[in-house]
Amino acid sequence: MSGTGTDVVTGTGRHPFDEDTRSQKRAGGGRTATVTDRWTVLTGHPNGGYLLALAVNALREEITRPDPLVVSGFFLRPADPGPAVLSTEAVRRGRRTTTGQVRLFQKGKEALRATATFGDLSANNEGTHSLAAPPELPPPDECLDPLAGFALSGLSLLDRIEYRTPRRPGWLDGRPSKTPTMEFWMRLAGGYDAGVAALPFLVDAGPPVALELGEAGSSTVELTVHVRARPAPGWLACRAATRNISGGFHEEDFDIWDSTGTLVAQSRQFAMLW
Amino acid sequence: MSGTGTDVVTGTGRHPFDEDTRSQKRAGGGRTATVTDRWTVLTGHPNGGYLLALAVNALREEITRPDPLVVSGFFLRPADPGPAVLSTEAVRRGRRTTTGQVRLFQKGKEALRATATFGDLSANNEGTHSLAAPPELPPPDECLDPLAGFALSGLSLLDRIEYRTPRRPGWLDGRPSKTPTMEFWMRLAGGYDAGVAALPFLVDAGPPVALELGEAGSSTVELTVHVRARPAPGWLACRAATRNISGGFHEEDFDIWDSTGTLVAQSRQFAMLW
Repeated sequence: MSGTGTDVVTGTGRHPFDEDTRSQKRAGGGRTATVTDRWTVLTGHPNGGYLLALAVNALREEITRPDPLVVSGFFLRPADPGPAVLSTEAVRRGRRTTTGQVRLFQKGKEALRATATFGDLSANNEGTHSLAAPPELPPPDECLDPLAGFALSGLSLLDRIEYRTPRRPGWLDGRPSKTPTMEFWMRLAGGYDAGVAALPFLVDAGPPVALELGEAGSSTVELTVHVRARPAPGWLACRAATRNISGGFHEEDFDIWDSTGTLVAQSRQFAMLW
Repeated sequence: MSGTGTDVVTGTGRHPFDEDTRSQKRAGGGRTATVTDRWTVLTGHPNGGYLLALAVNALREEITRPDPLVVSGFFLRPADPGPAVLSTEAVRRGRRTTTGQVRLFQKGKEALRATATFGDLSANNEGTHSLAAPPELPPPDECLDPLAGFALSGLSLLDRIEYRTPRRPGWLDGRPSKTPTMEFWMRLAGGYDAGVAALPFLVDAGPPVALELGEAGSSTVELTVHVRARPAPGWLACRAATRNISGGFHEEDFDIWDSTGTLVAQSRQFAMLW
């Protein structure tokens, strides 16, 4: 279902992500935004990473640093498409970084609370040392679209993202691999290049790895994202992994490398199995 | 320097951790506590994990769930030994979990802001599935105390913790291994058994792995801790690793298994190199 949405201007234009993560200053304090219906997941509710990206974007408007470096969001209630109010707070301005907090409310109830430290990723990049190798994937055009022929009404998120995988994932056909690691290519639909602001969304935009263990799905309790670099244009190589499931909870690690092989985001979430 | 502190009642008694992470309700709202000088690190300031554990403990007093499940703390300013005021907020009570926030102030300035979701780790432990194997270490009594003969005045934290390593770490002798992974045993000094409340401290109580890369040290910006089980008595097996250093920042993952081989804590921090 991906890649042909008429709401995408291919390549250089705008992706709905830009429009749907915008917020406006409100007279009397705070900001307002619209949570749109273009990011819904299996539950029918908007994807958590989309809400987090929207909230962090609103906070960034109030902070004079360009890039989120580390973000932690706690998901308190499911959100719904519709209006939202964002309350932002600049907590501490340091020499190299500024930390702030943002709360997203719908109908007067807090759905998400996120704290983030911002800085400048264009600054000193000396001393880069990475031991985490990107996944070894065939080029995207030698991979397949795992969602070809797949449609689930209400799961609008799948119209916003394109995936490419070396082979068809087993869980799609009811045969979970029992290996809770997924490696794949991902990009915004239409080949739109993701900026830094999209990373807190994209780390939550893959299928839950727990599906490969035969679980039905899970809900994010907390999501931490380290934004390590501004992504170069092109497809993003992703690795998602769950190593520990206990007491009905699990973690999911999700790392993203850009087309030059640079790690751009490293995330971990704590989630509750359904 | 470890293991013989007279402030420890061996085995069954109290460790200074209990005393030093206590807080009292304050008339007019909030709580008060004393940040003691028994947890200082190289900078002379108290260890971040100690502050986080103190703050989470204060929050737990206001939340009717026994165990922190996931904690995220942002370190805003260095703290100092002395009085602190804690402001707590119960944000959202759900069916299985409750989320709250705590802020730690010294001299009117916010030094730490932490958000945490609490639950009950004694509940359903079915379906445990772990792919993350604990480090393969010789038994603690066949390991050495890497700090034997090592003393650094002002680094009082080392009197509160005991470490055991298979061999002497290279960085201690100015020969960093260039392999940014450390595996070792750890426990509270005097053989006192760590409870759940000590885990947000212990994940930050090892030497910074960046030392193995020849870096002088780093300061924690944000620390996320997943508490996965209540630890059994005995030594804790630890693995710390840094995989990515860029732009003067790095992550550090720190996982802890108890003496039965159960993963009890999984953490990641985002830190700024000095």
